[in-house]
Amino acid sequence: MRIGVLTAGGDCPGLNAVIRSVVHRAVAGHNDEVIGFEDGFKGLLDGHYRPLDLNAVSGILARGGTILGSARLERDRLREAAENCAELTAKYGIDVLIPIGGEGTLTAARMLSDAGMPVVGVPKTIDNDINGTDRTFGFDTAVGVATEAIDRLKTTAESHQRVMVVEVMGRHAGWIALESGMAGGAHGICLPERPFEIDSLVKMVEERFARGKKFAVVCVAEGARPAEGTMPYEKGIIDQFGHERFTGIGTRLAVELEARLGKEARPVILGHVQRGGTPTAYDRVLATRFGWHAVEAAHAGQFGKMTALRGTSIEMVPLAEGVSELKTVPEGRMYEAESVF
Amino acid sequence: MRIGVLTAGGDCPGLNAVIRSVVHRAVAGHNDEVIGFEDGFKGLLDGHYRPLDLNAVSGILARGGTILGSARLERDRLREAAENCAELTAKYGIDVLIPIGGEGTLTAARMLSDAGMPVVGVPKTIDNDINGTDRTFGFDTAVGVATEAIDRLKTTAESHQRVMVVEVMGRHAGWIALESGMAGGAHGICLPERPFEIDSLVKMVEERFARGKKFAVVCVAEGARPAEGTMPYEKGIIDQFGHERFTGIGTRLAVELEARLGKEARPVILGHVQRGGTPTAYDRVLATRFGWHAVEAAHAGQFGKMTALRGTSIEMVPLAEGVSELKTVPEGRMYEAESVF
Amino acid sequence: MRIGVLTAGGDCPGLNAVIRSVVHRAVAGHNDEVIGFEDGFKGLLDGHYRPLDLNAVSGILARGGTILGSARLERDRLREAAENCAELTAKYGIDVLIPIGGEGTLTAARMLSDAGMPVVGVPKTIDNDINGTDRTFGFDTAVGVATEAIDRLKTTAESHQRVMVVEVMGRHAGWIALESGMAGGAHGICLPERPFEIDSLVKMVEERFARGKKFAVVCVAEGARPAEGTMPYEKGIIDQFGHERFTGIGTRLAVELEARLGKEARPVILGHVQRGGTPTAYDRVLATRFGWHAVEAAHAGQFGKMTALRGTSIEMVPLAEGVSELKTVPEGRMYEAESVF
Amino acid sequence: MRIGVLTAGGDCPGLNAVIRSVVHRAVAGHNDEVIGFEDGFKGLLDGHYRPLDLNAVSGILARGGTILGSARLERDRLREAAENCAELTAKYGIDVLIPIGGEGTLTAARMLSDAGMPVVGVPKTIDNDINGTDRTFGFDTAVGVATEAIDRLKTTAESHQRVMVVEVMGRHAGWIALESGMAGGAHGICLPERPFEIDSLVKMVEERFARGKKFAVVCVAEGARPAEGTMPYEKGIIDQFGHERFTGIGTRLAVELEARLGKEARPVILGHVQRGGTPTAYDRVLATRFGWHAVEAAHAGQFGKMTALRGTSIEMVPLAEGVSELKTVPEGRMYEAESVF
Repeated sequence: MRIGVLTAGGDCPGLNAVIRSVVHRAVAGHNDEVIGFEDGFKGLLDGHYRPLDLNAVSGILARGGTILGSARLERDRLREAAENCAELTAKYGIDVLIPIGGEGTLTAARMLSDAGMPVVGVPKTIDNDINGTDRTFGFDTAVGVATEAIDRLKTTAESHQRVMVVEVMGRHAGWIALESGMAGGAHGICLPERPFEIDSLVKMVEERFARGKKFAVVCVAEGARPAEGTMPYEKGIIDQFGHERFTGIGTRLAVELEARLGKEARPVILGHVQRGGTPTAYDRVLATRFGWHAVEAAHAGQFGKMTALRGTSIEMVPLAEGVSELKTVPEGRMYEAESVF
Repeated sequence: MRIGVLTAGGDCPGLNAVIRSVVHRAVAGHNDEVIGFEDGFKGLLDGHYRPLDLNAVSGILARGGTILGSARLERDRLREAAENCAELTAKYGIDVLIPIGGEGTLTAARMLSDAGMPVVGVPKTIDNDINGTDRTFGFDTAVGVATEAIDRLKTTAESHQRVMVVEVMGRHAGWIALESGMAGGAHGICLPERPFEIDSLVKMVEERFARGKKFAVVCVAEGARPAEGTMPYEKGIIDQFGHERFTGIGTRLAVELEARLGKEARPVILGHVQRGGTPTAYDRVLATRFGWHAVEAAHAGQFGKMTALRGTSIEMVPLAEGVSELKTVPEGRMYEAESVF
Repeated sequence: MRIGVLTAGGDCPGLNAVIRSVVHRAVAGHNDEVIGFEDGFKGLLDGHYRPLDLNAVSGILARGGTILGSARLERDRLREAAENCAELTAKYGIDVLIPIGGEGTLTAARMLSDAGMPVVGVPKTIDNDINGTDRTFGFDTAVGVATEAIDRLKTTAESHQRVMVVEVMGRHAGWIALESGMAGGAHGICLPERPFEIDSLVKMVEERFARGKKFAVVCVAEGARPAEGTMPYEKGIIDQFGHERFTGIGTRLAVELEARLGKEARPVILGHVQRGGTPTAYDRVLATRFGWHAVEAAHAGQFGKMTALRGTSIEMVPLAEGVSELKTVPEGRMYEAESVF
Repeated sequence: MRIGVLTAGGDCPGLNAVIRSVVHRAVAGHNDEVIGFEDGFKGLLDGHYRPLDLNAVSGILARGGTILGSARLERDRLREAAENCAELTAKYGIDVLIPIGGEGTLTAARMLSDAGMPVVGVPKTIDNDINGTDRTFGFDTAVGVATEAIDRLKTTAESHQRVMVVEVMGRHAGWIALESGMAGGAHGICLPERPFEIDSLVKMVEERFARGKKFAVVCVAEGARPAEGTMPYEKGIIDQFGHERFTGIGTRLAVELEARLGKEARPVILGHVQRGGTPTAYDRVLATRFGWHAVEAAHAGQFGKMTALRGTSIEMVPLAEGVSELKTVPEGRMYEAESVF
């Protein structure tokens, strides 16, 4: 068999572990050939690829980033790929394409699959918001980075009687905020799934101070929003040219809390630190299993599907299921965490 | 409601997170009272306990160990507890006992439950070998520690053309060896579930050297054993007094590989480093959820059960199911890892 | 001997290690008594203190923050302390005061010392900018946190062909930016000590891209400033109310680089994450040695001095020397780093 | 200028950082050429080398191991090198050789230098026992790894009322044991520099238990030895074939303490985990500075010298000084640590 593999979309710890696993299983396990397209679908369309043998993936298991590069996919060029998918498959002589990517990539994968290309997808997102799989690799690493930051902030907040607002990733789903908030013991957690009540947040902090705990940590997803009309800075800061500038919800919430509480509040914006670097052991194992099962699925002719964690097993689910809707935090999980506002 | 909580058995990162979560949910959520017995069942029998309020569990989420202490349970004294369980329950005025522990503790919990005590168990083991739950807290931390060690050993092994044998915990189940071996990219993995073939291990290393990779890392569970008759040191080292001494499989395997390969091999014994210290974010979240659901189960009168992770949910399963048999690594998972010998 | 100890100023990993070491050396080594004033000089003035014995400092070595609390010192109240220092010393029956703090605290310490109070100072700053000592504890931890962030950002930047701007602490001295920039391999470093040339930064990034390296990481101290007239956003962003808002040099530099390069640039603001949490081994050793030598100095009657690292030894230097001027990065060190702009 | 560089001796975090720094400074700073000999002096003698340009050292700053490999040096072949050093220098057209290594390597470097080869040495040892420099890179990483292990062991020991014996590296000098013992808060520290008194160790543990602290951690350097005649296992364990086996001082001390105390004692042998993997920020900065100054020294014609940290500066000291004697832990430092037995 000849397998094409590519990585597309944002960085995510574990991408290299999947590539390595695909190559190991295919080459050492099945005597397959593997080629890697560079910079995602761009490499597929423009003919930039290279053969991947065991040496090519040596030493990359624990490394962040992707040895194949990645790039944003433009809609037009994707349609071009779908229209020419038979030619592309023939041109590279591949029997299957294994794209590793997030919602956009899997939607593209589905488009190619529908157009007749043999495709096995591998879901990827630090946000853990892809449907059909219990977890995605990269998420555990992101939660770990955010949790370590909260751990460190707590001692500072405590020593200096401050409110700290940590903004973590998660534009549409609040998984990182939920789990790092729980793991770090944040006193308040704000998610995109539920507009937060600034009054309740203020009350919680005041009650803590009344109880003698003279600090608080709030963990807010970048996509969290206050309930309408409750925060003056709702629209962000408009600069002298009339443009809204780099002032996310973390910064605005800190400004607001400081104003209402009359106590110092400080924002911390972790940003891209959450999505790069060495993956945790958990993410390496999940990524490795995804790669292994993607190759097995290819050999079993299970096209149009993607790998998914279900309980302790890796199963194949239709790409359509993975991209049907975003997996957001359900009410029950918010209730469990106690501190979601 | 009045809740008694205790921790028993070996250390496990996340114990304090469960205790904290039980107290948070019970006190802040239900207005319950919580008391903590000291040193496991010993405290229950000897009347050593203390009230646990929010302040008592402040700042312990990320701390290893257990603020309640732990101790080995003696069979006789457990029977004593079972026989007097009505008196004990009455004496402390508790409506439920939440014991947090491994297989032995859960068996004891079941005995008390069968004798009429209202019990909700929380499973705990770094070995991940308790039946009925996808995972247990503590396991992720142990795998993380072992993986970091393998990461570090690889560069040393590579620079100096050596074979490294890492012995990790796991007397009866090889989960830690399997997952840290996969995450660290160990070239050989030996599990208690399958006697390993020393000849195959030797061949694998020789083939690596033949391919120009002048090092290898073998990850061996402390309970792994060679196939019968294949290793002279099978019985361990007998000292001048005729006693077998601290020479686990890791050391013996290194001796054997060095002899057969004619190349330097070095053992590393991580030991108790794997079972202490700050839990990973994953373990803190799982432990916190277990504690929360244990309290909910108590309020719902779901006695004789234990918390369990099933997919993404926490469910209550009968204690009997948890202790019926050890959850060992199935053949399919070994096959996936490729490098199990 | 009866010793008073206090911590003042911002959080700094290692404060608890100093407190513990003072108590260990004094109580176990000299049979002294130790009392700890709460919230810095405030506790000294307001009579808030507690005895510190071996149990009081048990388990705090590796913990961030300070068990004694800290608070900003107001000039007026300090003068009050200086004027009443004989009474204060008598009131608490202390033979020496050991204040642990930064430049402000050491200046206050000097004032008290000049007024006749027996004082032995311990310098503290994550910024490493106190004169008279080779290093201060807390700095190594801060550099470690910033370096790990740069490590993670590099793989993201590389995969996605971006420019990352990391803003680290250092208002007046650029030590953290210099060392984390060197340790993380940042391609550009901007320090408060030298106005940076935005043109040179742009040229460096363009040359990297021309050489096929399609990313760059710039590490900028919060106190770094562009050479006059070279950056339009020099004055920060003015909001709709005419106020400059939370938009540090990191954010502004990212905006500017993106505009000039026509490539995506992203800021990361680590903020207080750098000054809290578990200290590194290096900082724990240095803090422990400082505490030990402070007690010895007290017994030797070396008042008006502070502990200082000189080569491999701890020496006592006059407080006056420590606060005479800020220790900034000398030209030679910038030249060594190569990438300072 | 044409520069030859090689790494020899045991693995040490920071080797790659030195290589990278030499290449950066030489190529980008001076327009030099650099070649790297493979597997230490072997590559020099056998003609195995490769050119090192900026791309060759890209991405290696944070990586453990050495991209050039290393190998043990045989005395005879070294003498061969010394006898032919003029020919070797001419053969490769190098103007200077920069060997990076420990005592053995620096002795060899001195031999070559005395024989007329232009040599600039860079000292390397995780043990920190090279004379003439305040510190060596690799040491901080080793101490960090050992300290993290002690941190983890403490919670386990505390929960389970055990004595833990951690054996760390250091055959002739106890720096790693001293600093990780201090940083981890070990209750006992045993160094090669002073035969330890087992009776005092036993007494210390008993006093701790008497004070209600029901655990203890002892940190022992692999080269530590009990005072003569005080420990029965002094000679190690003799196996059934009459050979002493892998039973270092850590294991023997645990056996002895268990026997004398009547309490469980467990050994942990960290081994090579201490000498591999990603270097700390401290070690990367020191290694980078050493590389930079080695190139400058070469251009200044300062041959027969090695780089050394003195206070905050890098200075050049004669190779003879570096190898004259081992830098062991002085009495004063032991006294400071309080817990050295």
